[in-house]
Amino acid sequence: MKIAVDAMGGDNGLKVTVKGSIDAIKEYDVNIVLIGKEELIKEELNKYDYPKNKIDIVNARDIITNDDEPAMAIRKKKDSSIVVGLNLLKNKEVDGFISAGSTGAVLSGGLLIVKRIKGIERPALGTVFPTKKGISLLLDIGANADCKAKYLQQFAIMGSIYAQKILNMSKPRVGLVNIGSERGKGNELMKETYDLLENTDNISFCGNIEGRDIPYGNYDVLVCDGFSGNIILKLTEGLAMSIFDMLKDVFMKSFMTKIGAAILKPSLKEFKKTLDYSEYGGAPLLGIKGAVIKAHGSSDEFAIKNAIRQAKTFIENKIIEKIEEDINLLGGNNDKDS
Amino acid sequence: MKIAVDAMGGDNGLKVTVKGSIDAIKEYDVNIVLIGKEELIKEELNKYDYPKNKIDIVNARDIITNDDEPAMAIRKKKDSSIVVGLNLLKNKEVDGFISAGSTGAVLSGGLLIVKRIKGIERPALGTVFPTKKGISLLLDIGANADCKAKYLQQFAIMGSIYAQKILNMSKPRVGLVNIGSERGKGNELMKETYDLLENTDNISFCGNIEGRDIPYGNYDVLVCDGFSGNIILKLTEGLAMSIFDMLKDVFMKSFMTKIGAAILKPSLKEFKKTLDYSEYGGAPLLGIKGAVIKAHGSSDEFAIKNAIRQAKTFIENKIIEKIEEDINLLGGNNDKDS
Repeated sequence: MKIAVDAMGGDNGLKVTVKGSIDAIKEYDVNIVLIGKEELIKEELNKYDYPKNKIDIVNARDIITNDDEPAMAIRKKKDSSIVVGLNLLKNKEVDGFISAGSTGAVLSGGLLIVKRIKGIERPALGTVFPTKKGISLLLDIGANADCKAKYLQQFAIMGSIYAQKILNMSKPRVGLVNIGSERGKGNELMKETYDLLENTDNISFCGNIEGRDIPYGNYDVLVCDGFSGNIILKLTEGLAMSIFDMLKDVFMKSFMTKIGAAILKPSLKEFKKTLDYSEYGGAPLLGIKGAVIKAHGSSDEFAIKNAIRQAKTFIENKIIEKIEEDINLLGGNNDKDS
Repeated sequence: MKIAVDAMGGDNGLKVTVKGSIDAIKEYDVNIVLIGKEELIKEELNKYDYPKNKIDIVNARDIITNDDEPAMAIRKKKDSSIVVGLNLLKNKEVDGFISAGSTGAVLSGGLLIVKRIKGIERPALGTVFPTKKGISLLLDIGANADCKAKYLQQFAIMGSIYAQKILNMSKPRVGLVNIGSERGKGNELMKETYDLLENTDNISFCGNIEGRDIPYGNYDVLVCDGFSGNIILKLTEGLAMSIFDMLKDVFMKSFMTKIGAAILKPSLKEFKKTLDYSEYGGAPLLGIKGAVIKAHGSSDEFAIKNAIRQAKTFIENKIIEKIEEDINLLGGNNDKDS
């Protein structure tokens, strides 16, 4: 199995993408193709001892940054690591692609280069989300700011497959993110989606879930439009961070609180880690004809290695074939727009 | 000044509405009209010593519960405390109304009985929201699940007035809740709203605010549709609660962590309180022709007293007249739908 890694993407660049790739080939049975500026990748690789036959380099001179307009960058920067990597995937020269670079570019490129699975209206970006009970899968987290009920139905199907095959949830409970728990609540989109989900085979739809209940983890797959999903994800991140920031002030209040805090420090640090969603691997882009994992921009080598393992499991479990099957069951070919 | 209090509403009922009202007349210069089952109110009042001339009772035999469909209940339960109270407000027999009862019924009743201010397309429910820097005003938090850009523009205007007059923010910074910080980001609604807000006089529009930044409090007024606002409010509540729940487990892990936790307990308790948005008073219903404050369902007597003070400040500061003025400045009479 060959997985392409965008060597240039992410806040920490080559240092972590190269090290993460080397760790991955040692730990899992994969071959890696590192994409980016050849001489820089070689220089970084030379720092390590590794089985040379397991890593190839594909030269790509350009880089898409977060400042680039994503769709435009995909069209213009043909020699960027993201475009080159996605083309390898499209041409089946690799089995999967991971990038810690621009989320927008990975989304646009997935859609424009790798293209949608037949019948899928819109691909969705999902993420594993820490909860009190463990984890949930939240999707869409930003690929589609405006959604139709039909898209959300497909998100529910793709999310259920991913939860089952990759997160080992035997019969994932699907919840629709909404502003009331009863049927008939919410905006027009969610009312319509509720009715659709109730009549969708191959998923276990369990009804609406309110914002208040999201952190408690009673549902395995949380379905929402990309606007709400992105707010949920980022608000959760911001709140956890700000609460810990504010706790620091509480801890520094007096001599006694400092002592209390010192005692609790290791346990708190460990707890803080459980709340960090980037600990749980990258975000799968579901609904396109290839395994694409978007790793967090701030990924370290451990996160890159994790994303590679995630891509490997994605491929081994034939997620794309399973999505094709289940979407076919929905009936009708909806492949009318891109 | 006369303020009507729904004596029957809220999880804690008469016990807290009556006590909160008595505390309020002692502390502020207000008269209270308690609405509900007369004999029960009298029985509760008899437990206290208070200036009799400051409290009136208006009998109402019915109660709207959270299980009632709000708009239907407003139409059918004519003798409910909420309908009777809102009618007193409409007929100017009282100057304001507070209720800890069904949010949906207060919203529907506000719209159907008290009615919109001329030019206001949709009333909005706002709430004060604790942040790292203090507080922000978030609106709409659920009155309008589906919104148009024009509604959000009016929310920004009403929110700015409330922040200025009631929250004492001299030049409130308005942020549009969105999924990207730059102009042109977000869903169609937010793109359109951004352009409108940029060209709105009498507000200080400062651009988009992402979910991640909401808890940091860099904006004073957070404008969003009622669907997103409700999710933000409830997710924040749920996350804060779940984090404290999980912290408890961390604290109980060992003998040493228990000691650390015991030392920190008072400071943590105080901190937890600062995160509880119900501590900051009730939610004002902005855009109708009367002062209506929706107190939290779980209000205690302190929260009821606070909501009464909030209604008093609302009336004294002529919020409704100020909204009328600023909406007039927008030009055009938009009073076309209800």
